[in-house]
Amino acid sequence: MSFVASAGSGRIACVMVGLPARGKTYIARRVCRYLQWLGISTKVFNVGDYRRKNAGAEQAHSFFDPKNTEGNEIRQAAATEALDDMLRWFHEENGVVGIYDATNSDKERRSMVVDKCGHDGVDVLFIESLCEDPDVIISNIMEVKLLSPDYANFDPDKAVEDFKERIAHYEKLYETITEPDLTFIKLVDVGSQVIINRIQGYLQSRIVYFLMNLHISPRSIFFSRHGESMFNVEGKIGGDSILSPRGMQYREALPGLIEKHLAGEKLTVWTSTMRRTILTAELLSYPKLQWKALDELDAGVCDGMTYEEIEVEYPEDFANRDDDKFNYRYRGGESYRDVVHRLEPVIMELERQHNILIIGHQAIVRSLYAYFLNYSHADLPYIKIPLHTVIKLTPRAYGCDVEYFKLDIEAVDTHRPKPKTMKALETDTAPAPPPATAPIASPDRANE
Amino acid sequence: MSFVASAGSGRIACVMVGLPARGKTYIARRVCRYLQWLGISTKVFNVGDYRRKNAGAEQAHSFFDPKNTEGNEIRQAAATEALDDMLRWFHEENGVVGIYDATNSDKERRSMVVDKCGHDGVDVLFIESLCEDPDVIISNIMEVKLLSPDYANFDPDKAVEDFKERIAHYEKLYETITEPDLTFIKLVDVGSQVIINRIQGYLQSRIVYFLMNLHISPRSIFFSRHGESMFNVEGKIGGDSILSPRGMQYREALPGLIEKHLAGEKLTVWTSTMRRTILTAELLSYPKLQWKALDELDAGVCDGMTYEEIEVEYPEDFANRDDDKFNYRYRGGESYRDVVHRLEPVIMELERQHNILIIGHQAIVRSLYAYFLNYSHADLPYIKIPLHTVIKLTPRAYGCDVEYFKLDIEAVDTHRPKPKTMKALETDTAPAPPPATAPIASPDRANE
Repeated sequence: MSFVASAGSGRIACVMVGLPARGKTYIARRVCRYLQWLGISTKVFNVGDYRRKNAGAEQAHSFFDPKNTEGNEIRQAAATEALDDMLRWFHEENGVVGIYDATNSDKERRSMVVDKCGHDGVDVLFIESLCEDPDVIISNIMEVKLLSPDYANFDPDKAVEDFKERIAHYEKLYETITEPDLTFIKLVDVGSQVIINRIQGYLQSRIVYFLMNLHISPRSIFFSRHGESMFNVEGKIGGDSILSPRGMQYREALPGLIEKHLAGEKLTVWTSTMRRTILTAELLSYPKLQWKALDELDAGVCDGMTYEEIEVEYPEDFANRDDDKFNYRYRGGESYRDVVHRLEPVIMELERQHNILIIGHQAIVRSLYAYFLNYSHADLPYIKIPLHTVIKLTPRAYGCDVEYFKLDIEAVDTHRPKPKTMKALETDTAPAPPPATAPIASPDRANE
Repeated sequence: MSFVASAGSGRIACVMVGLPARGKTYIARRVCRYLQWLGISTKVFNVGDYRRKNAGAEQAHSFFDPKNTEGNEIRQAAATEALDDMLRWFHEENGVVGIYDATNSDKERRSMVVDKCGHDGVDVLFIESLCEDPDVIISNIMEVKLLSPDYANFDPDKAVEDFKERIAHYEKLYETITEPDLTFIKLVDVGSQVIINRIQGYLQSRIVYFLMNLHISPRSIFFSRHGESMFNVEGKIGGDSILSPRGMQYREALPGLIEKHLAGEKLTVWTSTMRRTILTAELLSYPKLQWKALDELDAGVCDGMTYEEIEVEYPEDFANRDDDKFNYRYRGGESYRDVVHRLEPVIMELERQHNILIIGHQAIVRSLYAYFLNYSHADLPYIKIPLHTVIKLTPRAYGCDVEYFKLDIEAVDTHRPKPKTMKALETDTAPAPPPATAPIASPDRANE
């Protein structure tokens, strides 16, 4: 039993509140990705998707006019359908956090949502996004809404005008949350001010802290494993060995590579407390920080052994690990699940930071990479993170650009593919290599 | 280099804001204790202490009347002196977080504080405590203020009346924080609503999250080590052994002992993921949770060895550990400092919870106990946490009641006292056993 997965105070509906183009869908997806990575069953229910399914995309702004009776009815029906689906999902699929992505822009609607959820034993946490800066709103429309299926066949200028009209329809009726009994977090101008009311329970508190730490300034995150180590060459796992001669070459080449792709910006380097990552970072002239939480997965009694030795000495454990690699915990050591939990503060700090280079270890980089690229727990332990390669991630509104820079310095291949047993064959055998740009999900779909 | 101690964005002045009897000193001390435990140099500067030093205690409320020119001057001088001392402390003693405990009740005063700190390169985080519930205010006056040196010779009823008059003097001039450019956290009615503005940097974000999670409902925290293990009997450290026959007796006796001292209240039991704590908890019929973060300090290459074997095999390491036990990290394992950092989420969750029983390990219970009783890092690794003993902590306004319940089941003594080398003799050789009630600090001293 792991802590995070079991300490929740029951089911939570995160109910978004905000005018169109205030980043509700962005926030909803970020919360979803964070909780899924922690192993918490989470799902987004976007009312816009239901509306488009029922009424077709490409509705002009007049559809959203409160005076348009037919439009109102269709939008109400979509909102109800999404909410009902979410409540069904809690019960039938053991959902823990449902995210209801809609405008929920007046008190009456919010009161109805609270009643319906309360009746089903689901706590409601409202997440309101307020933004009065016209530049941010326009850039949000440009970056996100024009890619929406709603405007697939619109001239871009006309689309922006139409969308502004659509916002105007909502503004007439919009009521910011002032209801004192509601549990809510209000994010003003992308978190420059945050108001929290009646937050309770571990999960709500984690979600709120995560939202407090989000920012949307552009930046990149670089990952590298340490240079090839003596243990890598010998095929041993764990330990605290130094670099091989080829690992030392990687160490020499790394500063030039980073400089080339950083374009003069600031950078901070994070390493583990192990010699192979500290050595690899040694020639980089940026501020450095050592994190114990970045140390390699602890292989317990198997530390210092080769996979062949483990197979001979602990044949049963070896088979168990292949069955469910994410949850398998080495005797006296850790599982990937343990590693994800100890990396949670690293992720939280990464969210707050700007350009960061992490020089880590195979299991560590896999776990961090899975967070940004939204890999499932089943696939996470098989992600290919080759030696002597820098991975550059650049988060975008609804995805993450991925670039690989492989240095021409040979190294052993430490990747063990998923064995093709009957059980393994039922699922994917290994995650496909990510494309140059790997969107986390499709572009935004505007709400109701 | 550890992360928390080095990742701060420079120096921070936490500047308290609030009327008298709003819990400012309580909050100031809680923040101080939390940061000190994490190893961050932190100190509280209480203006009331300066005022009493300069003008004597036992001033009647008329001293605090804004029309009392002499009183005003003395209070202004005390406020300035405390602020100057704090700024000096940042520079001369490398302070990281100074906590300026005063009412700071109007915009002019706050603006002056920001200017003075800014001039010295210190960021300001205002912490305002608002409370409109008269019951909470009265109970705060009764519980805390009557113990203050200000009222040492007052009749209690008269003291309450006098203190209410004192509050009334401040109320006339009080301005809640509305300045949009200030960095602040506003706690309304003990955290039922929280407003956060312009928080930036890792340390500020940690302080804010800590404050969000504080509550003041009465509760107790119970600590126990696991029952005596086979490794305890053999004098070995680490491992994952089961209980000895005497450890099994402790396991049998524990439910009765807990029930007796819990008085029918609710309880949750937290264990590590190791067999000896899970076994010890097995007969307790309360909800249980396993935390990987509660696993014993990882002794790395020394896991499974006796202290005698370690001394022979790694004589140099053994001597280093005695020199600075808090910072000594076992090869391939952990230091006490590492353990404190991995326990930080446990402390955060403990702050949020009600009655909890933790069944842990020697180094783990030491580290948690040190947090509640404010032990220094030097003393922490030598705190005596005997086997087969339940420790009950009951937090009070400015301290923590401590009770020991020793069961009459023999066990080995696993405590290694600090060796009396020349170096060790310069400091305390071992922390004194705590008294039945161990106040964290003296009772509250009202401000200015």
